[in-house]
Amino acid sequence: MKDNKIPDIVIGRLPLYLRSLQRMAQEGRKVTSSQELGERLGISAAQIRKDLSQFGEFGKQGTGYQIDYLTKQLSQILHVDRVWDMAVVGAGDVGHAVANYQGFVDRGFQITMIFDKDPSKIGAQFGDFTIIDGSEMVETIRSSGVKVAMVAVPAETAQQVADELVEAGVEAILNYAPIRLNVPGNVRVQHIDPAIHLQRMTYYIE
Amino acid sequence: MKDNKIPDIVIGRLPLYLRSLQRMAQEGRKVTSSQELGERLGISAAQIRKDLSQFGEFGKQGTGYQIDYLTKQLSQILHVDRVWDMAVVGAGDVGHAVANYQGFVDRGFQITMIFDKDPSKIGAQFGDFTIIDGSEMVETIRSSGVKVAMVAVPAETAQQVADELVEAGVEAILNYAPIRLNVPGNVRVQHIDPAIHLQRMTYYIE
Repeated sequence: MKDNKIPDIVIGRLPLYLRSLQRMAQEGRKVTSSQELGERLGISAAQIRKDLSQFGEFGKQGTGYQIDYLTKQLSQILHVDRVWDMAVVGAGDVGHAVANYQGFVDRGFQITMIFDKDPSKIGAQFGDFTIIDGSEMVETIRSSGVKVAMVAVPAETAQQVADELVEAGVEAILNYAPIRLNVPGNVRVQHIDPAIHLQRMTYYIE
Repeated sequence: MKDNKIPDIVIGRLPLYLRSLQRMAQEGRKVTSSQELGERLGISAAQIRKDLSQFGEFGKQGTGYQIDYLTKQLSQILHVDRVWDMAVVGAGDVGHAVANYQGFVDRGFQITMIFDKDPSKIGAQFGDFTIIDGSEMVETIRSSGVKVAMVAVPAETAQQVADELVEAGVEAILNYAPIRLNVPGNVRVQHIDPAIHLQRMTYYIE
């Protein structure tokens, strides 16, 4: 199923399709079409059909897509037909918000550990978690095999944290700090950048 | 300059170009190319040239783009050559994180007001802000002319908040709650959805 030649920009759209399908399923729907998905997402139906066709034949001309089946297939392709353990680095506002976030359920992720280097925070309760000493982070993550981490520290320390996460074997970093992180080619970084989303909307305001 | 026929997916890439250009300027750079932008962003150089050509002629074949000039042009196109006042709704973890976020500087946005309906929070200091009673939100936003808002309340109340924001005249909503908001066609919503970014990365982890 996996083909490394599929452009990253196509891979980037698959989670959007999956989210729409899961919401439709919650609404009790059974079947959808590339037209309907396109209208929900602001992407052309042709683009959606082209993207999906790179991975197989998921629907029949004229009958649309079975939502259950396509959801399962996309989950497998994106490797979220399992649950990934995640580490959160930084027990401040952002770390707190992320730890309490209700949007990971049924989407393939769960937070299992939170780190901070502030002595006044280490050992404290943080929602359901006990904050772990950041100086133990590399060893703890490496021995647990965690591959996914969220960087929720200030910009000044984010690169150092990223370096440590790479050293610990993390391969996917979700970065909440407002800087660009440098990582080796085998590690992926995605940036939560609210200004990008805002700028995309102000274009339309007269 | 504005052309309503330009696809939303193209508009969505312009902020990425702008962010890369601003970072290059911070690095002291003067000139770049569609190739370099493409490598930074994982987008083909041809796509970038095609996107930019929809708005004008920004570079010469073989000499690349003047970073300063293209930055100014993109800022104008996206309407971030000014500073937009923003309202934050919800003075919890997410609201706190957003209010302290350092990533809006020089990108066209500033938070000017924070609302909450919790009586124990109203009137309290929240960073530089005094939390305003959520029941005064519609009137306060309308009279101040604020057009951009961030929804940082739990999923259960997010739709009601969105309805009030629309009533108040807001045209751009950045939604941190893990639900899909229904708004009229003249209002834009962008969703901060960390699972989307995570799923885009787990595809690449074996």
